[in-house]
This record gives sequence, structure tokens and C-alpha cells, in this order.
Amino acid sequence: MPVRSKNVSALKAGYLFPEIARLRREFAAKNPDKKIISLGVGNTTEPLLPHTCEGLVEGAKKLGDAKTYSGYADEGFSELRGAISRVFYNDTFAADEIFISDGAKCDIGRLQLLFGSSVKPVVQDPSYPVYVDGSVLHGAAGRRISSCDGPDCDDTRYGGIEYLPCTPENNFFPDLSQIPYNSLIYFCSPNNPTGAVASKGQLAALVAAAKRTNSIIIFDAAYSEYIRDPSLPKTIFEISSAKTCAIEVNSFSKHAGFTGVRLGWTVVPKELLYSGGESVNADWSRVQSTIFNGASNIAQWGALAALDDAGRTEIKTLTDFYLGNAALIRKALQVLHITCYGGENSPYIWAHFPGRGSWDVFNEFLEKKHIVTTPGVGFGPEGESFIRFSAFGHRDDVIEACNRLVKV
Amino acid sequence: MPVRSKNVSALKAGYLFPEIARLRREFAAKNPDKKIISLGVGNTTEPLLPHTCEGLVEGAKKLGDAKTYSGYADEGFSELRGAISRVFYNDTFAADEIFISDGAKCDIGRLQLLFGSSVKPVVQDPSYPVYVDGSVLHGAAGRRISSCDGPDCDDTRYGGIEYLPCTPENNFFPDLSQIPYNSLIYFCSPNNPTGAVASKGQLAALVAAAKRTNSIIIFDAAYSEYIRDPSLPKTIFEISSAKTCAIEVNSFSKHAGFTGVRLGWTVVPKELLYSGGESVNADWSRVQSTIFNGASNIAQWGALAALDDAGRTEIKTLTDFYLGNAALIRKALQVLHITCYGGENSPYIWAHFPGRGSWDVFNEFLEKKHIVTTPGVGFGPEGESFIRFSAFGHRDDVIEACNRLVKV
Repeated sequence: MPVRSKNVSALKAGYLFPEIARLRREFAAKNPDKKIISLGVGNTTEPLLPHTCEGLVEGAKKLGDAKTYSGYADEGFSELRGAISRVFYNDTFAADEIFISDGAKCDIGRLQLLFGSSVKPVVQDPSYPVYVDGSVLHGAAGRRISSCDGPDCDDTRYGGIEYLPCTPENNFFPDLSQIPYNSLIYFCSPNNPTGAVASKGQLAALVAAAKRTNSIIIFDAAYSEYIRDPSLPKTIFEISSAKTCAIEVNSFSKHAGFTGVRLGWTVVPKELLYSGGESVNADWSRVQSTIFNGASNIAQWGALAALDDAGRTEIKTLTDFYLGNAALIRKALQVLHITCYGGENSPYIWAHFPGRGSWDVFNEFLEKKHIVTTPGVGFGPEGESFIRFSAFGHRDDVIEACNRLVKV
Repeated sequence: MPVRSKNVSALKAGYLFPEIARLRREFAAKNPDKKIISLGVGNTTEPLLPHTCEGLVEGAKKLGDAKTYSGYADEGFSELRGAISRVFYNDTFAADEIFISDGAKCDIGRLQLLFGSSVKPVVQDPSYPVYVDGSVLHGAAGRRISSCDGPDCDDTRYGGIEYLPCTPENNFFPDLSQIPYNSLIYFCSPNNPTGAVASKGQLAALVAAAKRTNSIIIFDAAYSEYIRDPSLPKTIFEISSAKTCAIEVNSFSKHAGFTGVRLGWTVVPKELLYSGGESVNADWSRVQSTIFNGASNIAQWGALAALDDAGRTEIKTLTDFYLGNAALIRKALQVLHITCYGGENSPYIWAHFPGRGSWDVFNEFLEKKHIVTTPGVGFGPEGESFIRFSAFGHRDDVIEACNRLVKV
């Protein structure tokens, strides 16, 4: 039989979230009487609000009618591409700079294809696993340089990737002088998992660092609609010069509850060029039309509903609800004198347990409180001794989890 | 700025179907009074039938209800995975051998990641472009060895790919002795574009050739529901020993009209191992959970409706309709004494114009008859002097196109 790709075999076995799901199932099987509450995975729990849901229902009905049936939608409905430009980017992009997809994660997994293997992936440490794992799968990560191996080894660093520590000491914003030349900088704000949001000044510094090092930023703005502080930027393109050095990915998953609907987008400005002057936008169009076949039309009709006035109000209602959960979790952790970050402009709370391993803390919460969290080290070496709490949950469950937390 | 990936720059500019769409738009702009009929792209045109559509509508409604809301569905609803095994594979696969995705093309684009760059891609010539283009994007194709360059160069061969001619002379079944050791064999039956369907004996020979050469088959069965001859196999797994050497991709696009809904699946048997004995199934699960995030839940509910008794009847009705179109097109071509193949167990008709270039014939049909077709050479060098007619169209349009064809 053919040999296994060395990139696949370089990947640490077990993606973080299926691994957590497995541990949860094992605990549940041994403790069938215990009610487990998940504050782990970032999976939305609340039903879609009526106007947005009606957009999806009407979209599905359109496919049953000869007058409104539609097949392949290629790079997306131009009406939706225009609406995204208007709502999120103040109409500063043409429709053909916005590409509709089935989700930000899928696009991040394909974007790596555009850049040669000589590019250096740069990630915040900790960060969402797909930046590192996607780089490994596409052969851009180099050798694993972990200090251990096996299922309980938490150290997952690769030689070809530059990790920028984001810790309480630097207020979760990295030392930009560490960015090498010719990098592909994955940057997420509001950050998953730390909940930190970069200021406009910080993003301007990031853009300047990208230009200085001939690098491109892949900016993950999937949580932008959780920002409540009006001084904080919701997109890298609030820095206007970012158009020559940044790609932005975003998604309806977390703000419109579309995790199970599947819809995202990627902005590739026409000003963005490779070192040889070729258009990145043209290549992305070629890649998407070649190995992707468009997002669901039903999801696109739903997204159009989510972006009109009534839909925008629903997005606000839904994100307010999850931020309400986040406030409850923060309060419970404060009662316990656990230092925590995030949760004010982000659905994630990053709790610090100095001197302890994050899988230990994960296991303690699961066994003693029957609460599923996410061990911080799963997001990178600097996540050790942290735990991520997700605010995605039913209110009753969150209240019960908080009561369990504060009970001695 | 970072350099462009050499794999992306190796790709011939312009994916076939957007290129055809561009030519169509140009013709329409110059001839606004002409009604253009498309028998080009394989895009479904008929509305979903009521029972299947109701499945989608009900699925969308479920997301608006707290009791039935769902988020990430990972590798797919287990109920759907089971239904696919039952309906298409006589229950010979466990649910976790069937992976639900947003479409066959997207899965084909990711499957290449599993195998090392030492694997040799093998394609039928002509074949669906994504096998070659996906191999190029993942660096498995080697250098372009075309005899020309530029937008009108039709020769798109790559040094690292083995092309197996499928022509009238070999009845569109390739010489299997040409398959190198350690290959990844892309094989499509019913074939796009030739419409040829391999017999059970031919598939048994293909499986034997794969085993003899330590190769893996990626079997594309996207048109299997168009098979009407009961002696013809609908899946590679009718050859039971294929479980140790084949992966099958399939889709609801062409038989349930889901081109705009987006739903497909891939079967990766647990018996399938790499040369080192590792499980391909486990790796595919890891890849899909890492750089993909599951198909739309609405689409999955629709697919469940499409696979019950009423839904299966609708699939039969819909594929019968398009086969009816195919019969009309075949008849018109026969009146013109144009030799054609396919169209009886497949929605594609492969028409031969000996001595002529296929872009010439394409242009003649567009300019004189205002009919969009697909030039055969777009599917590979052996497609030169052929034209693909697609049976996806409204009946009135197909009848009008046939009338235009036969009119002197």
C-alpha cells in the first residue's frame, strides 16, 4: 500500500476537542448518575432567533420551487458578498474581494496552499489548534520538537513554526520583534482561548511588523461581534494599510448560532500581492473554485436574513446572552479568588491556576464538579496552568455550574 | 511579501468551468438578443421534489427550537451514516467508516493530504479536472510538460501524473498495465465526461491491478444513481476485496438535486491500511476534524428524507427526468450522424468530431446555435475532438436546443 504522508504522521494523534469528548464519554460511562455540564467546546447551544431561522426556512423552500431553485453558487451570492462588505467593512471592499465558504476553519485549512513551503508560520501561543495543525498537514511546520511523546504528552511544538508567547506578563499581546522575515502570521482577536482583544494601536503595530518583515497576516475575526468596548477594533482592516498585507477570515457560527448551519467568509483584498507581484485574490478564487464547491445556498439565504436590521438585532441579542453567561462564570471564579482574563468582549474566559498542570485542573473539574472545560495547554505550551471556560451553554446549566464551582 | 506557492503557480490559469462561464458572458454581452441554452456545466436545474425539500425545511425549523437545536455535527449524524450504509452499501459498512461532508469535490481536494509526495497520481484521460488540479495544488503532480502556454493552450499535462487514455478504441476502459507502483488511482464510473460505466469484471480487474501495484483507488461514484442497467456496478465495493485498497466518494448533488445544498460522503474502510500498517480511516477522521468542521445539519436532515422510501422514489424520478433529456440529445446527435457515447447510464453524452479541435466545436455551437457545451480537451489531452453535452437542463430548453441542433 502507499506510504502515509509524513505530514499526517507528524501530527500529534488526537485533535484536542474529540479528545476531550472522549474523556467526557469515559467519565459519563463510569458515572451514569452524574449530570455533566460542558463549558468546554465553543459550540453554540441556543436556538436560532425567529427572523434568522425564517431566512433559512424560506431558503430551503426556494429550492422546491422552479422559479427560485439554484445550484452551485461558486464563490457566493453577490448580494451576500455585498451585504458583508456593507455591514462589517463599511463598504470598503468590492463583492469579489469577499469569498463565501462553509466556515472559517475550512478556509484556514486551505489558505496555507497559497504560500510556498519557504513561508514561516507564526502563531500566538496559546492559539486555536488549526493554525498549527493545518501548517503541519501542508508540510510548512517542520519537525516536532516536543520534549515528550505519547497520549499524555502536552508539548506539541514544531521546529518550523514560530510561537509568540501571549501571557499575563505581556497583557496577551506578543513581542512583534520575534516575527521572522517571510512569515504567515496567524492572529486571532478577540482571541481564542485567552479572550484578549488587541487595541487599534496594537493592530497598527502588527501591520507595521508584517510590512517590515515582508509577511502576510491571516486575521481570524470569528469573535468580533462579541466586542462591546467601542474603542476596540472589530477587523484588521480598521488599519487601512492592512489591505496590502492581510487576509481576514470570519464566520456566522459564533454570532448568529450557525455552528450547525456552516457559513463563513474570507476577505482577500485586491491590493494584496505576492513578492512576484501576482494577485493573491486571483489565486484564492482559483483554489476555491478548484477544490471547494461553494457554501450551501440555504445557509446563504439565512445569512442574508441575519444581516438585515432585524437579523442584526438578533445577533446582538444572541451575543449579549452568551456574554451574560461569561459574566456569571467570571463572577464565580472571582469568588474563588481564581485570576481570570477575557469574557468581557469575548465568549471565552481564561483562568489561571499557577503551579498546576492544565490537564490536572481539567480532570479535577470533571471528577469533582462534573464540569467539562478545556485544558489550556491544548492551545500551546504557554497555555499550561490555564483552563479555558466557554460561555456557550444554556443559562440554567451555567448557573448550576457556577453554583457547583463556588460550593466548597 | 511572501512568495507564491510553486504548486499554485504550476496550475494552469483558469479552472475549466469559470472559463466557459466567462466565454458565455462575453457572447451574451455581444449578442443580447440571442437566447443562450446551456448544456455545459453539470449543474442541476430542476427544483427539489416535495418530500426531500420538506426534509430541508423541517431541518431548518429544528434549528429555531431549543429542543431540537444542534451545533457542530463533526463527521456527520450517525443516523445518516447508517442510512447511507444501508441504502448504498447493503449495510456492509459501520457508521464510522462513512464520513459526511459538504461534497465529493471538497473531499477529493483533501484526500490527497493523506498520502506522501512519493505517491503517483493516476487519472483516466479524459477526467474530471479536480483529480489533476488537486494533485498539482498538493505538490504531487511534478512539472508541467505541456507543449504550449498561454490562455489558448489546451495541453495541460504534468510530469508526475500518469494519464491512462480512455478512448473509443479501448471502449473507454484504460490499459491497467500502465499503472505504476505506489499509485493513487482516481477512477470515476459512471464517468465524467465520457459517460462510460465500468462493468463488474472491469472493476475486479482494476482492484486486482491496485493490489498488484500496492496502490489505492479513489473511486468517484457521484453518478451511480444514473445507472439503469442492473448488471453494472454502482460502487467499487461490489468487489468485496476492494475494502483493502479503495476509498469511495459520492454526493447527493446529482441524484437528489443538492448542488446548491452541499452534501456528500466518503467511505474509508477500516481494512484500508498504509504500507506501515497504520489506519487510513483514523487519519481521515483526524484530517476532517482538523481542517473541516462538518456538513450543514440542515442538509443532513434533507439527506435523511432523500434516503427514506418516499425520498428514494424522488431520486428515481429526478434521475429519470435527466436521463430523458439525455435520450433527446442523443437522438438529435444521431440525426446529425455525430458519433456519441454515454447518456444511457449517465447524464453526460460524449460526442466525437474527428479531425476538429474541441474549442473550435465549442465556439461553433455557441456562435451558430447559441448552445453552451464543454470542450472535451478541458478534461485532458485525449478529450481533444470531443464535446461533452450535459443532460442537466429544463425540458423545454433541451427540446429547443435539439431543434436548433438538427436544423440546417
